[in-house]
Amino acid sequence: MAKNETPRTAITPTRADDYAEWYQQVVRAADLAENSPVRGCMVIKPWGYALWENIQRELDRMFKATGHKNAYFPLFIPKSFLEKEAEHVEGFAKECAVVTHHRLIAGPEGGLIPDPEAKLEEPLIVRPTSETIIGAAFASWVQSYRDLPLLINQWANVVRWELRTRLFLRTAEFLWQEGHTAHANEAEAREETARMLDVYATFAEQFMAMPVIRGPKTASERFPGAVDTYAIEAMMQDRKALQAGTSHFLGQNFAKASGIKFHTQSETQEFAWTTSWGVSTRLIGGLLMTHSDDDGLVLPPRLAPAHVVILPVLRGEDTRAKVMDYVDAVAAELRSVNFGGRPIEVEVDKRDIRGGDKQWEWIKKGAPLRVEIGPRDVDGNVVMVARRDRGSKDKTSMSRIEFVSKIADILGDMQTALYDKALAFRKDHAKRIDDKGAFDAYFTAKNQDKPEIHGGFALSHWCGNAACEASIKERLKVTIRCIPEHGIAGVVDADGLKDHGACVQCGAPSDQRVVFAKAY
Amino acid sequence: MAKNETPRTAITPTRADDYAEWYQQVVRAADLAENSPVRGCMVIKPWGYALWENIQRELDRMFKATGHKNAYFPLFIPKSFLEKEAEHVEGFAKECAVVTHHRLIAGPEGGLIPDPEAKLEEPLIVRPTSETIIGAAFASWVQSYRDLPLLINQWANVVRWELRTRLFLRTAEFLWQEGHTAHANEAEAREETARMLDVYATFAEQFMAMPVIRGPKTASERFPGAVDTYAIEAMMQDRKALQAGTSHFLGQNFAKASGIKFHTQSETQEFAWTTSWGVSTRLIGGLLMTHSDDDGLVLPPRLAPAHVVILPVLRGEDTRAKVMDYVDAVAAELRSVNFGGRPIEVEVDKRDIRGGDKQWEWIKKGAPLRVEIGPRDVDGNVVMVARRDRGSKDKTSMSRIEFVSKIADILGDMQTALYDKALAFRKDHAKRIDDKGAFDAYFTAKNQDKPEIHGGFALSHWCGNAACEASIKERLKVTIRCIPEHGIAGVVDADGLKDHGACVQCGAPSDQRVVFAKAY
Repeated sequence: MAKNETPRTAITPTRADDYAEWYQQVVRAADLAENSPVRGCMVIKPWGYALWENIQRELDRMFKATGHKNAYFPLFIPKSFLEKEAEHVEGFAKECAVVTHHRLIAGPEGGLIPDPEAKLEEPLIVRPTSETIIGAAFASWVQSYRDLPLLINQWANVVRWELRTRLFLRTAEFLWQEGHTAHANEAEAREETARMLDVYATFAEQFMAMPVIRGPKTASERFPGAVDTYAIEAMMQDRKALQAGTSHFLGQNFAKASGIKFHTQSETQEFAWTTSWGVSTRLIGGLLMTHSDDDGLVLPPRLAPAHVVILPVLRGEDTRAKVMDYVDAVAAELRSVNFGGRPIEVEVDKRDIRGGDKQWEWIKKGAPLRVEIGPRDVDGNVVMVARRDRGSKDKTSMSRIEFVSKIADILGDMQTALYDKALAFRKDHAKRIDDKGAFDAYFTAKNQDKPEIHGGFALSHWCGNAACEASIKERLKVTIRCIPEHGIAGVVDADGLKDHGACVQCGAPSDQRVVFAKAY
Repeated sequence: MAKNETPRTAITPTRADDYAEWYQQVVRAADLAENSPVRGCMVIKPWGYALWENIQRELDRMFKATGHKNAYFPLFIPKSFLEKEAEHVEGFAKECAVVTHHRLIAGPEGGLIPDPEAKLEEPLIVRPTSETIIGAAFASWVQSYRDLPLLINQWANVVRWELRTRLFLRTAEFLWQEGHTAHANEAEAREETARMLDVYATFAEQFMAMPVIRGPKTASERFPGAVDTYAIEAMMQDRKALQAGTSHFLGQNFAKASGIKFHTQSETQEFAWTTSWGVSTRLIGGLLMTHSDDDGLVLPPRLAPAHVVILPVLRGEDTRAKVMDYVDAVAAELRSVNFGGRPIEVEVDKRDIRGGDKQWEWIKKGAPLRVEIGPRDVDGNVVMVARRDRGSKDKTSMSRIEFVSKIADILGDMQTALYDKALAFRKDHAKRIDDKGAFDAYFTAKNQDKPEIHGGFALSHWCGNAACEASIKERLKVTIRCIPEHGIAGVVDADGLKDHGACVQCGAPSDQRVVFAKAY
């Protein structure tokens, strides 16, 4: 390709040209994941999995700090367990992977077939979520009030058969954590539900640099079988909402279905109060769509698998050893620095490929800092530093000592800047709307070729009637993401959420604004 | 129970009385895991899972230090993939979980049934191991010699339908890691196979304090589809062998089945050379059977979920605050000490139950150190320390300062002592046997009520003939565990393994001793 044909962005198409396709291309260019030959299941590649490991590590630390312990429960759920909780059946027993046989044998026409002799008496379901199987365990673990609270988390794979899949956002198999807790009374269970929503919001904002709005869901958007579902909702760059985590207050519904009973201090027997809460590899999709640009992935430093990539510039055999020694020394110095409670992760890319290709590969993969080191840098005891949040040609020569001493600050600044930028974006694309006409116009794309680019989030009044909610959903594909618990920076404060107004659908009086948006 | 009825051991039956039942009772008493309502699947409880997390953390560190990266591949394998490698089919396609439908619907008699309309065109197999599905990914990832070596590891759950299951040792679903690598030539692939066997042996000996014998398997014990399988084998306290980890050199078999081809530097196209290697939650069973005693689990300090358990002795409300403050201060001091590269883990058991019950609970759970702190200890600025490797009543009063300053040494000594004890046990129950009569007698239990207590490991000559191996297996249920690569401490040195002798079955000449044993 001749120089003047060089595309202006590393990702084609751009966000503005075709957002959905841009997403797929960023996943591919960053080498995060790919579709597998198994319908709807993805392969998470090393760079994507390392990101997931970082997400896991920080969340796991937060779960343990709030008193939870990890355990592991079976992959399979007997069909009869799913039948126990009526609403849960409706919500989860539909599209799932059903195991019916436990053996393959040679078929009459060659190849293998399920052995008709090895048909299971009761089919097993690959867990879509584990409330029922964990409930069975809790029923035997909990006898007395002394056994409560029971605070358990599981890291696991789950399967929900999906017809239309998108890497990370919606796949048949995905990785997640599911917290499951049991409590002696409603207040403690509600407190737990709120605590874990708070953990999720803190994680999203402090680690993912992704601002979220938190609050309860409406009845129609609740987890099947829950009394209340709370969510954190984030705005993506196409202005749609992504539900990034949920925390459910299950009341005594699942305790009754599973028989989780305990002897109280006053020697009566009661059903426990349970909660469940989860986040999944979907977070990676959310992180991508919050920060990435038309040059590829942008990673918040606190979750980046590598904070710095060093790219040796080897101009000839005579200086190779000198450059590599210097590179190794700089890498070692950087690794001795802590950032966000762990040592700086340094990747040294020694591959023998064109320098420009290498640069662009790491830009597309979202490495926060790129450091070029050539013979002249060695002579000057300097490094050439490029930041992912600046233009690809924006490089600064820094003294080696200064860079090592400042790197944690630079990364910290980048982390903050990413959050601020995402917050500003949300502020620019969220508004209070009180008029039905304006509401409809807000959610109607100006350019019909790009139906995904509409207004954003509307903070509007809703009378509380499910019919109004359904009507808006049908008319505009817009749903109530949550009933916000806190003011939304730059858009509406806490008082403003509770002003008196009229339902944006039916005009009936309302004193609660909710977040309306199109959603993933 | 009156005092004089106190049983002499915490676990009933003892190892000597009924080894298999003792094992189950130790798992239960230590609260490691339990059977689930799903046939053959276990629930790994928090104490057992924390042990697995520690195993994972250390192995993961070792894998990354040897250049491997983690990734994640689909849970399901299309049936046609399993059919690709002929030997692999034979070995793995038999007893497995087969997914045939992707939806449940309401049945005619109530309840749910697999929807006949949602039958999969091609059944999916829940992965029993992932060579075939990872091979498909590698085939697209590897194009050129520059893409090699490809060094990947996966932490995952796998399912192999088992009729007779035992917690950790043999379950339908288990957790494991599976390494999969591709190389440009045979030598590098063989080097990788050896390197990972070495990682496993190092981990077993240094972290699990479990001595192992390493070496290749005979052809009949190879992984289905492998050219060579190497294993680490450990002696359990019933003198049986446990295969604790395997590393397979797969030659080009799987590369040919999956189409993993690359362009060489000389521009020819060749199939890659692959390896795979794995260890599983079975390690927990091995750890248990190596060290535990008739009072329950004994944990090597380097893998213990808690190194120290502090048991406050609260004799009255007036001293409660004083004791608890002191306990918290001691806990904080201990947590600031490092052992084996991580901070000392301290559990403070504040539960309001009988002190004796608490003591025994932690003995059964295998906590390396128990520390009792009562009002008089606070006054004397001392702590009462009990070690899990000594009698339950053997307690030492130590000054608080001395204990904090010495705890890492104490734990280190306990770690070494556990290894030495296990090594001495193996030495006592392994011998060179050259006579067929002696060989048969060695593997015949003296007491027919306890058929599991036989001689142990025999280092005997084998002519290399599969028929001799099969005959010994049929006659005595004894198999060749491996062809040892190194001398076995106190039993036979490297030269002694290669002396000239006669096959213990047929009398034909042999110059290689192998390890014969009964096995799990």
